[in-house]
Parts: sequence; structure tokens; C-alpha cells
Amino acid sequence: MTENRKPSLEICLTPDAVSFVDLTGKIAVVVDIFRATSCIVAGLASGVIHIIPVADIADALHYKSQDYITAGERNGGKVEGFDIGNSPFEHMAQERKKIVMTTTNGTQAIESVKSTAEQVIIGAFLNLKAVANYLKAQNKDVVIVCAGWKGRFNAEDSLFAGALALKLKSDFWWEGDETLFASHSYTSVKNNLSKILKHSSHYKRLEERGVEEDMGFCLEIDKFDNVPILKDNLLVNS
Amino acid sequence: MTENRKPSLEICLTPDAVSFVDLTGKIAVVVDIFRATSCIVAGLASGVIHIIPVADIADALHYKSQDYITAGERNGGKVEGFDIGNSPFEHMAQERKKIVMTTTNGTQAIESVKSTAEQVIIGAFLNLKAVANYLKAQNKDVVIVCAGWKGRFNAEDSLFAGALALKLKSDFWWEGDETLFASHSYTSVKNNLSKILKHSSHYKRLEERGVEEDMGFCLEIDKFDNVPILKDNLLVNS
Repeated sequence: MTENRKPSLEICLTPDAVSFVDLTGKIAVVVDIFRATSCIVAGLASGVIHIIPVADIADALHYKSQDYITAGERNGGKVEGFDIGNSPFEHMAQERKKIVMTTTNGTQAIESVKSTAEQVIIGAFLNLKAVANYLKAQNKDVVIVCAGWKGRFNAEDSLFAGALALKLKSDFWWEGDETLFASHSYTSVKNNLSKILKHSSHYKRLEERGVEEDMGFCLEIDKFDNVPILKDNLLVNS
Repeated sequence: MTENRKPSLEICLTPDAVSFVDLTGKIAVVVDIFRATSCIVAGLASGVIHIIPVADIADALHYKSQDYITAGERNGGKVEGFDIGNSPFEHMAQERKKIVMTTTNGTQAIESVKSTAEQVIIGAFLNLKAVANYLKAQNKDVVIVCAGWKGRFNAEDSLFAGALALKLKSDFWWEGDETLFASHSYTSVKNNLSKILKHSSHYKRLEERGVEEDMGFCLEIDKFDNVPILKDNLLVNS
């Protein structure tokens, strides 16, 4: 970023889109509303010591012997042999515990940016305002990375990206059409967020697994004020 | 598609997303509003005999000796040695002519679907209603493929996808979150379409090249009632 101009803000609507963006020197905000990043925010806000995000189930099981709570899901369901799944309530019950976590989309998205971005932070509706304030204070270029579902676009992550873009509008230079699109979508549905998202594919997929309460919780705005950041491969509060 | 249900409607917001969709037996609607598919619709509505879409400049030049008008662009500008560029007005002036066309995004998107989709048709705001009526009459599963810009998302193609999805809402089963997102975006901006798109990256990119008149034309809704379709690698009116 050059001097005398606002930092830029870009959105990757899917993790694949990251390949078009140079993350050098930028802050990547990873988003997986249903439910990985909501769990990370809620857990760390509730006294979890740290969370190690890993891409593979085998990597997670490796930490089990080291006094870690194994957490995560595949295809929306709990992983066999893991201590907890991907519900924010389960994560909030792990005060003073260390968690190792792997999920279908969220931890893969963290993996895709951690070697190139200058900082990786975690966003969710639960800490929307805190993330916005953090980014304003950093004054660096920002890329919001939507985890999506198995490489594809999803509604809830993109709507969060739109909400965050709107909060940063006066302080950042919007780059690319994704900001325009996501912010208009968010403006259009924000008063009916949970109603609209009940039509989303992911909501329907998870609702079948009886996690409607989780979904409602994940759409609560500004419930927490922590901003998880990846430091030496550990997610901690910034 | 099974019997006794509505056909499905899906949107690929970028050509890359096509890799997640099985196009077998489906109709692909290729969209590149600024400006390839707008040119195809306008040209064929104005008496062009047929258009051959090709991916490479060399392929296009090969047809020059066969009495074809060479048309297209790279990075928004006319290709050196070509007869015409990528303005709908140039295409509308080619009555009774045959055109061979290559563009940065639009003809590449056609290329990406033509071997797998059952039919490839061409959509633009210029023939929005005609495309919707055609699809309703066909009663087959539909995938709207946004050409984007060099593999990335763009606003104008996605908004068109939203507009078409809304026209098909009662006759098709919306599949995936893209339909939800694109239709809400279109609803939110439809009364200020050209004002909003003046903030889009592609508009700015082309405006620098002095083609503002083209852009305004490409946003006119239902100016033509033809539906271009790919038959034996030739685009003709259906």
C-alpha cells in the first residue's frame, strides 16, 4: 500500500478466489459463519486458552494425547472420536482448555491464507464491530476470505463480508465488484437476516442435523468484542 | 431431472464455479454483459447470419480469409488486425455478414460449457424476457454461467443472473445460494442499475476507453426478442 491513500478492502467470495489476490502485507479476515469462525470467536471469548486450526482429522487426533480438546466436523456432523463438534455452545463450555479444530471449510480457508497474509484474523457476526474497529486501527490492506461450502459460494459468509465492508466504507478503498455486490445484498436483507438465511442451502443442510439453535446464535451481532488472531499457528485473542 | 418436479436453476458466479456443476442434460445460459453476449444478441437481432465464437486470436484470424468479419477484444480493447471490436453498434452494422469473435471472458465461458451442456444459449439484458420465455418453454434444468472478468466475479453478469432468476422463480427450483444472493442484489439495485454499475470495476475499466455509450446500451432491458443458441459451433437465433 502506498502512502497518502486509504488502505484497500477486497472480498474473496470463495477460497478459490484467493488465488487471484496477492495477500502480501495484507490482513486476511477468515469467515465461516456456520459455524467454524463463530465457534472460534465464542470459544476464545469464553476463556478457551487457544485453538489450533488444522486441515486434517489425523492432525487433530495427534494433539489428543497432548491434553487438547478435539473439535470439528465433516459435512456438518461431528467427527467420530472427537470430543466436541462444531457448535458454539460446546466451544463456550471449554474454559481454560486448549482446542484443536478441523472443519470442512473454515480451517481449510485459514490454511489457504496463513503462509501469505501478514495477519490472519477471524470474523463472525458475533464480533463484527470488534473486527471493524481492529481493522480501522491497523490501517493495512484487507481481504475478507469467505470459506464457502466445499469451494462454492455461500450466502451467510458473503452477507457477513457485505456487513463488514459497509462498516469499513469510509476508511477503506473498496476494490473489486465483490464489495459492491455483497454490501448491496446485505443492505437488502439485513432486517430479515435469519429469515432469508433459512432459505440458504447451508442452513437447510445443518437444520436437518438439529442445530437450529446454533444457527440463530451465529447470527447474533456484536455479542462479543474479541478479535481472534493467528499467532505461531495458534488462534488467540488479539 | 426427475419427473413431477420443477426443473432446477443454478448460477455460476464465475466460470471456475462450472467445475462444481454437472451440466449434462442442462441448458447453459452464458452471460457477459460488458460486452460479448450483448454484442451477440444485438448482432443476430440485426441480421448477422451467424457468429463463430473462438477462444484464440489465431483461430479468429484463420477465418478472415473465409469472408468472415473478425471481431473481439482483449483487455477491453480491439484486437490488432481485427475488423471490429466489441461494441454492440459495430455488430449491429454487420447485416448479412458472418462474424468470428473472440473476447477476454465471454467466448472463453462458451468454450468452458459447450462440450458438456445439452444446449448453450446467450443471455443479456437486451434479451432478458426472451431468454426467460425460452427457458420456461424448454422445461429443462438451467445453469446461468457468468463470464466474469479473467476468472473473477463481476457485478453486471451477476446482476443479470439475479434478474433472470427472478423471472424464472415460479417455474424453476432455485438450487444453491447464488440464486438467493444474486436475486436480492438485483432487487436492491434494479431501479439504479446504471448508476450502481458506474461504480463497478469493469465499467470503470471500459469507460477509460471511451465506450460509455456501449455500456448504457448493454443495460437496456428487452430491446430485442431473439435468443442466440450454439448449433454446430455457430451462434444463430433459436
